[in-house]
Amino acid sequence: MGEADLAVELDDVVRAAERIADDVVRTPTVHSRTLSAIVGGEVFLKFENLQFTGSFKDRGAANHLRSLAAENRSSGLAALSAGNHAQGVAHIAGRLGLEATIVMPATAPFTKVVNTRALGARVVQAGSTLAEARAELDELCRTDGLRPVPPFDDPDVIAGQGTAAVEMLDDVADLDALVVPVGGGGLLAGMATVARARRPDIELIGVQVESCGPVAELFGHRPTGGVPTDTLADGIAVKHPGRLTVPIIRERVDDVVLVSEEQTERAIALYLEIEKTVAEGAGAVALAAVLADPPRFAGRRVGVVLSGGNIDARVLASVLMRGLVRTDRVSTLRVEIGDVPGQLAPVLAVVADAGANLIEVDHRRLFDPISARSTKVDLVIETRDGHHRQEVVDAIVALGRVVEIAS
Amino acid sequence: MGEADLAVELDDVVRAAERIADDVVRTPTVHSRTLSAIVGGEVFLKFENLQFTGSFKDRGAANHLRSLAAENRSSGLAALSAGNHAQGVAHIAGRLGLEATIVMPATAPFTKVVNTRALGARVVQAGSTLAEARAELDELCRTDGLRPVPPFDDPDVIAGQGTAAVEMLDDVADLDALVVPVGGGGLLAGMATVARARRPDIELIGVQVESCGPVAELFGHRPTGGVPTDTLADGIAVKHPGRLTVPIIRERVDDVVLVSEEQTERAIALYLEIEKTVAEGAGAVALAAVLADPPRFAGRRVGVVLSGGNIDARVLASVLMRGLVRTDRVSTLRVEIGDVPGQLAPVLAVVADAGANLIEVDHRRLFDPISARSTKVDLVIETRDGHHRQEVVDAIVALGRVVEIAS
Repeated sequence: MGEADLAVELDDVVRAAERIADDVVRTPTVHSRTLSAIVGGEVFLKFENLQFTGSFKDRGAANHLRSLAAENRSSGLAALSAGNHAQGVAHIAGRLGLEATIVMPATAPFTKVVNTRALGARVVQAGSTLAEARAELDELCRTDGLRPVPPFDDPDVIAGQGTAAVEMLDDVADLDALVVPVGGGGLLAGMATVARARRPDIELIGVQVESCGPVAELFGHRPTGGVPTDTLADGIAVKHPGRLTVPIIRERVDDVVLVSEEQTERAIALYLEIEKTVAEGAGAVALAAVLADPPRFAGRRVGVVLSGGNIDARVLASVLMRGLVRTDRVSTLRVEIGDVPGQLAPVLAVVADAGANLIEVDHRRLFDPISARSTKVDLVIETRDGHHRQEVVDAIVALGRVVEIAS
Repeated sequence: MGEADLAVELDDVVRAAERIADDVVRTPTVHSRTLSAIVGGEVFLKFENLQFTGSFKDRGAANHLRSLAAENRSSGLAALSAGNHAQGVAHIAGRLGLEATIVMPATAPFTKVVNTRALGARVVQAGSTLAEARAELDELCRTDGLRPVPPFDDPDVIAGQGTAAVEMLDDVADLDALVVPVGGGGLLAGMATVARARRPDIELIGVQVESCGPVAELFGHRPTGGVPTDTLADGIAVKHPGRLTVPIIRERVDDVVLVSEEQTERAIALYLEIEKTVAEGAGAVALAAVLADPPRFAGRRVGVVLSGGNIDARVLASVLMRGLVRTDRVSTLRVEIGDVPGQLAPVLAVVADAGANLIEVDHRRLFDPISARSTKVDLVIETRDGHHRQEVVDAIVALGRVVEIAS
């Protein structure tokens, strides 16, 4: 497929940048010293989580809605989304004085429903799957004459998302590589259009998650499959990427890679601990890809797009706790003790002496019997690292107890 | 006490700003639309959590160490701190090629020890209290000839912290009020010196926590007391504020107020959910104070200092979960059911029908007997809000079950 056939060119994105300048936040691109040290290259982060609705989706919605408004075709909008697209459309429609109806599956997370309503949109919850919700959207558009706002497969939306690259390259002109999350492909297609035109030698890399990687598959990688909705990066778990976006990505992008759930979790935790910033799963995959392959980026200037920060508080809490478990800072030790009085105290004493912090004790005498004369206790402890944990385990073993690291 | 006696004047801070310009991050001051809407005024946030070590302490350390270096008195530094001061001194000493020894109590959080070492400092852990650690610091200074770097009570440190206000007022010249956390008082004293001189009519407000508010007490407020180390805002739990800082605060500051633990937690959660940024407890109290008293700030342009973001991952996870419980989004329902087979399933069915998300079931038949014929089950559920939770409770009651909201 030749260049001439592609839906979006540099000029479209440059025009979009002018058109939406007042509608979106000009987010910062910031050099990270610590992440640069970890990668061995120079890492520059684009903070799209600082857009008003917490993701880059404001850009495409603004460009699409401004374009409609210019043509006087703008009254009565509808969008299908349980996520960031919903909030982007709701927010921009509100700014432009347009009415927006957002269709969400009944299973959409509560916070998404609440936030979208708070932005002034009407929310219709319908169906338990996206397909059923889509039928409701079609029905609404037919009966109420609403115009659907596409989430990615539209020239104005693609050009709008691409404005993020205009800002990045204005801020850091000499990037050697640019790494961008891919769901439907609007963000990558738009950004690649700008970056390839302005900086022909740049390496452009898209990122998907292993469980849902149809675009990565086109670049020769093998998704594991699985249930896409189980991924932490639900914002990019799109099974059918766009008919307009994919040809642009094939033409202008060098590679679309895959990251695992654990790599995504680790990236979210690093964003919090090092950058003091909140990334959702889909927003963190670009950093995950860079951290997964440091040799590829060593000695180079790498732009990483943090595309969104809308993560559920409960999910974020769980990611934080799992991060502590993964790095051996929080562990569950299952200790066998005798089923006679006074057996637990000496174990707790050596834990304290070893300088570990006791978080939880679960002593269910009746439910976990090993024999008539012994039982197991779960101790949840906090340690500096795996080495420190081993010191604790050794100290308990020295008491003559059997210890298993349960998690 | 007259102006003439005070330790720091505007010129000192302006000179400090020039001196440390290359050592610190010029952090952004950002207008928050959502927080402005909540407060009914215009809220501007100063992101000091984006300093390299995650707090404003880099500023004072840089000014103090640059000042020592200029006088050739700089080799062998020591500092006492289990927190941000440690990291600030370690980082700046490393930049200037100086050796730093940080004394921490043996009880200091692991992450603080690890992070301070990673910045190149020698960490000495001594004593279980700050007083015992202080004795170790004195001993090290005597025997090894080290120079102590004071955490707040020093003209160069105060002037260094004050540089945050130079930047804020350069970015937003017409602030009506400025709200700043207070521990030892270095940050508030320094910032107040700048703000009072540049904008005489500005209202300057310091913030402490109820459990440890010696400076607020001087302004007629009543701390509740309690154990200061139990506060989430441990970074400002300072019992004895400075001999240099307090006179500056009395002269130049209008009020030092108190916030509760719950208000502090709520501010941390809002920073995460709305601003996508990480605040530690001490870093969040200024926002907590503004949210606690909207009428005071309505219609005004209010500067809020987010002074630091170094919060333990486990504490942050706990704050997130407690926030969900506080806002009735996660609840534990204790349901009485009959101690015969098949009693639990219908209860779970109505929970699902009501659209609530079941997170955990704790059914300990043997341990919580009410009578020989009934038992209690704890259901942890996720709901949209208190109203939605009540729908779930009503549905279970309609089955003829007794339900208690346990948390």
